Amino acid sequence: MKQSPLLENMIEALRCLPGVGRKSAQRMAYYLLERDRTGGQKLANSLAQAMVDIQHCQQCKNFTENELCVVCANPRRDHSTVCIVESPADVIAIESSGVFSGVFFVLMGHLSPLDGIGPEELGLEILEKRLVSGDVQEIIMATGSTVEGEATAHFIRDMVEPYQIPVTRIAQGVPMGGELEYLDANTLARSITERRKLDF
Amino acid sequence: MKQSPLLENMIEALRCLPGVGRKSAQRMAYYLLERDRTGGQKLANSLAQAMVDIQHCQQCKNFTENELCVVCANPRRDHSTVCIVESPADVIAIESSGVFSGVFFVLMGHLSPLDGIGPEELGLEILEKRLVSGDVQEIIMATGSTVEGEATAHFIRDMVEPYQIPVTRIAQGVPMGGELEYLDANTLARSITERRKLDF
Ligand SMILES: [Zn+2]
Ligand SMILES: [Zn+2]
Repeated sequence: MKQSPLLENMIEALRCLPGVGRKSAQRMAYYLLERDRTGGQKLANSLAQAMVDIQHCQQCKNFTENELCVVCANPRRDHSTVCIVESPADVIAIESSGVFSGVFFVLMGHLSPLDGIGPEELGLEILEKRLVSGDVQEIIMATGSTVEGEATAHFIRDMVEPYQIPVTRIAQGVPMGGELEYLDANTLARSITERRKLDF
Repeated sequence: MKQSPLLENMIEALRCLPGVGRKSAQRMAYYLLERDRTGGQKLANSLAQAMVDIQHCQQCKNFTENELCVVCANPRRDHSTVCIVESPADVIAIESSGVFSGVFFVLMGHLSPLDGIGPEELGLEILEKRLVSGDVQEIIMATGSTVEGEATAHFIRDMVEPYQIPVTRIAQGVPMGGELEYLDANTLARSITERRKLDF
């Protein structure tokens, strides 16, 4: 390539972003240089700071620059109800639903023996410490409705059992506003087998 | 959003990239934090440096961290043949074709009166200085085959005319390996009206 080494570096560096290939990286580089140098500099600064300062919450493993994340550090949250999710994105999704006032435990993945992801990689010993403390009164399993998500939920349920803490699973079925016609067969099957009696 | 302010900043900053919305920015941030902090730091450094150091070549307007870009600074290039393109990406495409040994002039856009992009915005006075110098012996118009690209090509042709320098236009037609069936009607029409006699 006959172009500026600095520009070449920048294009290569942009490719560390997921879903960004050579062509998009090039387009991004030209765009920043031509139209938004201020944005590019802000990005450089916040990236540099985030890569060094953001670590995991010591209680729930979610990303934070402090010892505890904003949820765990909030005394107004119900610390006896722990919702277990796979990722920080799930935390945001549940927070935006507005119906959950407990705290989280973020696995940062799911059990995947073939990829070498076992209980330690998910930090389940941190979760177990919370169970031992006796403060937890309900575990809500909100891992994905995938094979791995279900397997992870079952594993954790077995782990929680000796502590006699109730474990619930978020409901699965037809999404609100979802048309049956476009729904996959498995979801539809589950929504039928787990049907509820309507109150009149 | 209940999450780390630093992380929130980083997600917002990533949205300055073209084609990156809230969801992708979030995915990128989590990916870097979880899987590639080294890549994230490299990106921060190369961005910071590029945003400050990369400017425009004084001769062809392409991006460079020096006074002249690698092409303009190369004495082995044919400096009498100037290929006019709309963007740095076009320079790379033409360079990779391997058939052009001249130099470029990069408009960084095309004429677009409605967007306030006129001859000055494209830096055509820099091009005209090169014409005045008497060193240019051919101008190859390689602006896009779009309405704006054609209008820009015509405008520059008129500008060059008084200097009696030959102006050529890159050929338009069916792409190599292209199937007629999938080609748009305009390209096909042009490939027929501009047909060439085959030598036997
Ligand atoms: Zn936390
Ligand atoms: Zn140049």
